[in-house]
Amino acid sequence: MGQVKLVNYEEASPEVRAVFDDIMKTRNTDYINNIWRALAVNPALLKRFWGQMKEVMIKPSRLDPLTKELIYLAVSVNNNCDYCINSHTFAARKHGLDDAMLAEFNEVVALANAGNRLTMGLQVEPDERFKPKHADKPWSTGKKSAAKSRKK
Amino acid sequence: MGQVKLVNYEEASPEVRAVFDDIMKTRNTDYINNIWRALAVNPALLKRFWGQMKEVMIKPSRLDPLTKELIYLAVSVNNNCDYCINSHTFAARKHGLDDAMLAEFNEVVALANAGNRLTMGLQVEPDERFKPKHADKPWSTGKKSAAKSRKK
Amino acid sequence: MGQVKLVNYEEASPEVRAVFDDIMKTRNTDYINNIWRALAVNPALLKRFWGQMKEVMIKPSRLDPLTKELIYLAVSVNNNCDYCINSHTFAARKHGLDDAMLAEFNEVVALANAGNRLTMGLQVEPDERFKPKHADKPWSTGKKSAAKSRKK
Amino acid sequence: MGQVKLVNYEEASPEVRAVFDDIMKTRNTDYINNIWRALAVNPALLKRFWGQMKEVMIKPSRLDPLTKELIYLAVSVNNNCDYCINSHTFAARKHGLDDAMLAEFNEVVALANAGNRLTMGLQVEPDERFKPKHADKPWSTGKKSAAKSRKK
Amino acid sequence: MGQVKLVNYEEASPEVRAVFDDIMKTRNTDYINNIWRALAVNPALLKRFWGQMKEVMIKPSRLDPLTKELIYLAVSVNNNCDYCINSHTFAARKHGLDDAMLAEFNEVVALANAGNRLTMGLQVEPDERFKPKHADKPWSTGKKSAAKSRKK
Amino acid sequence: MGQVKLVNYEEASPEVRAVFDDIMKTRNTDYINNIWRALAVNPALLKRFWGQMKEVMIKPSRLDPLTKELIYLAVSVNNNCDYCINSHTFAARKHGLDDAMLAEFNEVVALANAGNRLTMGLQVEPDERFKPKHADKPWSTGKKSAAKSRKK
Repeated sequence: MGQVKLVNYEEASPEVRAVFDDIMKTRNTDYINNIWRALAVNPALLKRFWGQMKEVMIKPSRLDPLTKELIYLAVSVNNNCDYCINSHTFAARKHGLDDAMLAEFNEVVALANAGNRLTMGLQVEPDERFKPKHADKPWSTGKKSAAKSRKK
Repeated sequence: MGQVKLVNYEEASPEVRAVFDDIMKTRNTDYINNIWRALAVNPALLKRFWGQMKEVMIKPSRLDPLTKELIYLAVSVNNNCDYCINSHTFAARKHGLDDAMLAEFNEVVALANAGNRLTMGLQVEPDERFKPKHADKPWSTGKKSAAKSRKK
Repeated sequence: MGQVKLVNYEEASPEVRAVFDDIMKTRNTDYINNIWRALAVNPALLKRFWGQMKEVMIKPSRLDPLTKELIYLAVSVNNNCDYCINSHTFAARKHGLDDAMLAEFNEVVALANAGNRLTMGLQVEPDERFKPKHADKPWSTGKKSAAKSRKK
Repeated sequence: MGQVKLVNYEEASPEVRAVFDDIMKTRNTDYINNIWRALAVNPALLKRFWGQMKEVMIKPSRLDPLTKELIYLAVSVNNNCDYCINSHTFAARKHGLDDAMLAEFNEVVALANAGNRLTMGLQVEPDERFKPKHADKPWSTGKKSAAKSRKK
Repeated sequence: MGQVKLVNYEEASPEVRAVFDDIMKTRNTDYINNIWRALAVNPALLKRFWGQMKEVMIKPSRLDPLTKELIYLAVSVNNNCDYCINSHTFAARKHGLDDAMLAEFNEVVALANAGNRLTMGLQVEPDERFKPKHADKPWSTGKKSAAKSRKK
Repeated sequence: MGQVKLVNYEEASPEVRAVFDDIMKTRNTDYINNIWRALAVNPALLKRFWGQMKEVMIKPSRLDPLTKELIYLAVSVNNNCDYCINSHTFAARKHGLDDAMLAEFNEVVALANAGNRLTMGLQVEPDERFKPKHADKPWSTGKKSAAKSRKK
C-alpha cells in the first residue's frame, strides 16, 4: 500500500488533469501509471517531474531511447527500487529487450558492482592517463562581464 | 595510496605475467592499468576478474560496446567509485562520448535516482501490467531426470 | 580535476549566461559555484537543474529552508558525495548550524543507518498500524473522462 | 516473515521486560513495535539500541523533533528500508506532516540524489570557499598531559 | 514474480543441465535454488556466475566458510537484497549461526554504517598511520620484458 | 580538511578527556585517532559512540575479533568510506590479514555485490525453504502483563 492515495482522473484538479492529459497524449495511451497518480498529491511536483521525464527520456537526444532506458534501469537495479525495475524493464522490453539480453544487461551491472568494490576496497588510485587534461581558471568577474555584455 | 603495492612486470610471477600479456594483447597496448597491477597480489583473483571482464565487456555480444560502457559507468557513478568513473569515462570517450553527451548521460543517471527515490519514499506499488506473466513451476526431480537423460 | 572544463562567464553562450545571471541575482552574489560551471557544457541541462533547485530549495514552501538543507545534506552524507557535503554543510552553516549541531545532525544520520540495517538484516515486517489506510481504486476511463470534461 | 521470532511480553526475560516497560512508559503507549520485539532475541543489543534511540531521537536537543524525524526518514528512503519508511512516515505524520508535505519532502530527497549524481558523475571539485578554514594540530602527548592533569 | 521464468531441469539445454548437475553434486542436494533457475535464461552467464561462486565461496581458502558467508551477508544487508539475505542467512545458520549471533552480526553491520556516516558526514581525514607505506613504481616496459622473458 | 577542528587533549573538557583516557587505556596506546578528536565537538556523542564501539567491537563476544573487523570492513567498502577502509584495514592487518587475504576478502565483497544485483535485477523471489518457519503472535497486553508480573 502506497503512502498516499492514488489520484483518479475524476477527482483530479484541473492542474493535475492537464498533466494526466499530456502523459496520455505523449505516450499514446489512456492509462496512467501509479507513480503519476501518487505524485498528484502535490500538483507542482507532478508537473515538474513529468516535465523532466519528458525532456530527458522521451525527447530525442544524442543517446538513443533504449540506451537511456538501460542507463535508467541500471540505476534502478543498483538502488533496488522494485517499482522502477518493474516499470523500466517493461519499457525496455518494448524497445526489444528479451530475456537473454536482460540477463546480459544484469551481468554488466553485476560486474560493474564487483569491479567497483575491488577498486574501492583496495583503494586503487586512478592512472594519470585517465584524468582529464583541461586547465580550469578561477571564476572571473561574472557580474562585471555580465554588465559589460549587457552594455554591448 | 592503494592498500597494496602495484605489481610490475619484472617482479611478477609467471601466472601474473600470463594475465598481463593477455591484457596487453587483447587491448593492443603495452600499458597495464593500476587495477590489474593491484589485483596481482592474488593471482587467482586477477585471473578470474580479467576473465570475466574479457567475457562480459570485450567479447562481442547482443549489447553494443558503448552501451555496455555506459551501463558500467552508470553503476560506477551510483557507487561513487572514483577510479571507476575515471577509467570508464575514459573508455566511453574512446567510443565517441563527448562532453555534452557525458552531461546528458549523467542527467539520465540523476533523473533515475530522483525517480527511484520519489517512488521508494511514497512506497508506490508496481502496476499489474508491469509484472511478468509467466507461471513458474516448482523445481522437479532434477537428479532423476538427470539420471534418465544420462541413460539416453 | 573534474571530467569537464569549468565554463567561465566570458566564454559562455547567451543561454548559459542567462542562467548564470539568474543564479547571481537570486543568490545575491557575483560568484558561481563549480557545479553550475560544469553543467554549462550542456546548457539545456544547466537550465533544467537550476530551475529545479530554484523551485524546490529556494522558493518558499511548507518546509523551512534549514530543514530542506538538512534533508539534502542527509542524502549527500548517505551517498558520500564529497562536493555536496562541502557545499550543503556550508549552506546549512549560513542558516545557523554550528559544529555541535552538525555533529548532532550526523548522529541522527548515523542512527538512522544503524536502525535501517538492523531492520533490514532481521527482515522485520512493518506493523499493521504503520500502514496507510486509504483504499486505492483502479485507474478509470481517463480518456473518456478527459473527453467528457473537455466537452463541458 | 522476519528472520527471528517476535518476542512477546509474557515470554520475555526480566532484562527485556525492563526495556519494554521503558519504551511503553516513554512513549505513553501499551504497544511495542515489531523492531523492538525482534531485537529482544539479543537483550544487550535491544538495551543498547533503545538507549541510543531515546538519547538521540526523543531527548530534547537543539534540532527539533520533526526535523530529526525527517532526517531519519531521508536516510531510510535512501536506503530503501521498507519498515523504516513505514514507521518514520507514521511518526512524522504525528508531528503534522500531511500528504502534500510528504511529497515535498520526497522531492527534496529526490533532488539531492539527482544533484549528488550530477556532481559525482562529472567529478566536480569543491570550491575553495566551501572548505572549512581551521588548522588542525597533530595529536600531542595525550598520556603525558593526562598524567599531568591527573597530578593536579 | 521474477522477471524471467524459472528454468526446470526437464526443459533445460545440455549446457544448463551440466551446470545444474554440478551444483547438485557439489552441494550434495537434488534441489536447485531459484537464482540458478533464473540465470539459466542465459546459459553462458549461469556458467560464469556458478563458476565464480564455486571458486570463491566453496573452494577452501584462507578465510573460513562461515566468515565468508558473513562477509557476503553483510554486503547483502547493506544492499537490502531480500533474496540474498534470506539465502545467506539460511546458509550461515547451517554453519552454526543462531538467533543471538545473527542479531550480534547485524549490530556490527549497523555500527559500521553508523561509524561510516559519522566519518563521512564530518569528512574526517585518515590518520597518517593508517596509510600503507609501500612505494609504487610506474608501469615499466611490460611488452619488452615480456618479449625478453619469452626468449629465455 | 574535516568539517570540524580536531580536538587536542590540552584543550579538551573533562568529559572529553575522560573518553580520551578510556580509549588510550582500553587500546593500550597514547594516540587518539582523528575520528574521536572530531566527535569531541559534541562530547555526549563522543561518549555514546565510543561506548558502542567498546561494547560491540572490543568486548569479547560470540563472533571473534577478526570476523567482526571483516564484517565492519565489508560495510565500509560497500559504503566507500575512505577513512573507515583505511582504519579498519589497518586494524584487520593487526589481526593477521595479509595482502593476499585482503584481496580474497575483497573478492567476496565483490562477488556478493555481483550476486545481489543479479538477483535484484531479475527480481528473483526467495525459495520457500529459505524462509524462517516460526509463527509470530500479535503483541499482547504488555502493560497488564507488566502490572501482573510486578505484583508477583
